[in-house]
Amino acid sequence: MRAFLLITHRASADGDFTLEDMPGSGGRVDIVVRCITSALLLSHGVRRDTVIYVLFQRGRNSPLLLEVRGAEVRYLRPDERSAGALIRHALIRGGEGLTSPGIYVWRRNLEETLSRLSEMGEITLLAEDGEDVETVDFPENVVFVLSDHLNLTEEEEEIVRKYAKKAVSVGPLSLHSDHVIAIIHNVLDRRQYS
Amino acid sequence: MRAFLLITHRASADGDFTLEDMPGSGGRVDIVVRCITSALLLSHGVRRDTVIYVLFQRGRNSPLLLEVRGAEVRYLRPDERSAGALIRHALIRGGEGLTSPGIYVWRRNLEETLSRLSEMGEITLLAEDGEDVETVDFPENVVFVLSDHLNLTEEEEEIVRKYAKKAVSVGPLSLHSDHVIAIIHNVLDRRQYS
Repeated sequence: MRAFLLITHRASADGDFTLEDMPGSGGRVDIVVRCITSALLLSHGVRRDTVIYVLFQRGRNSPLLLEVRGAEVRYLRPDERSAGALIRHALIRGGEGLTSPGIYVWRRNLEETLSRLSEMGEITLLAEDGEDVETVDFPENVVFVLSDHLNLTEEEEEIVRKYAKKAVSVGPLSLHSDHVIAIIHNVLDRRQYS
Repeated sequence: MRAFLLITHRASADGDFTLEDMPGSGGRVDIVVRCITSALLLSHGVRRDTVIYVLFQRGRNSPLLLEVRGAEVRYLRPDERSAGALIRHALIRGGEGLTSPGIYVWRRNLEETLSRLSEMGEITLLAEDGEDVETVDFPENVVFVLSDHLNLTEEEEEIVRKYAKKAVSVGPLSLHSDHVIAIIHNVLDRRQYS
């Protein structure tokens, strides 16, 4: 099982954004959407072995954890607008649990999230100053933690480092989070399928 | 210099799509947009050493080649909608040449495009049955040719293979074109900056 946890900083848990302006009205929820499609979609299919979690820390309903399971998700398409509509639907519904096939919301903060995820797989922080991913061995079940366009706060980093066994870097340049996910998948795909 | 040439199959050269439905009304122009941002955008900056070309083969104004230069482009943001607006503006403007900073359109078909690009760098086809990219050496100037969500037609493939010195693959699974571009950049970044 591969999992990703995206920690957001300005995106609202309330789903009160418009599809016409996801970056502005959504506090960069466009990044959330691209990370979800990058984590779960192949060219003609879904990565059934992958789950992505997104932590929302702003808004009335925060903290809120969105979970999208590759094995169950339906109606997830690669374009940003339709995936954005699916995410907004999950957020505005409120409550906890299943919101549409494969999509769940939970009332959890960062510490609670990591505590649970650390039972599912080895927590690994994706950080620019981490070890080169190519030189690192991963167990079968691994949970990669990454930030959106902003760095983790000191407090967040302290919590993550408490659970993370490793910090790894995908390369020498600072990349968009969705591209980092695509590269991590590629590294693991090569090892698993080659 | 790194360059990418994306060969599209259903996207219209006329820019007659709506930002509310780029996949449907635009003949999967959402793929074009994501490939452009994936080719040119870093987390907080632009890849000034990269150019992406997109060949449109449908519509009244086709064949049409869109060129976006990292060294010159402005107003290119990572979200699909705003990048889509920039591309639509370039397409509906008509004529040839500069349409906005760093964005050009040219009346060229595949053969004319490859003939010119082969003078700029070594043409390399990205294909699932190609050699493993990790084992391949590239010159400083390289032009990667890839298709959108559809395979190259036999005729297209014949033309590309006439110019391409190599065919390379990024990994064992079939990925979205924008993720392929992110992975190619990562392979080259590691060699160039590490």
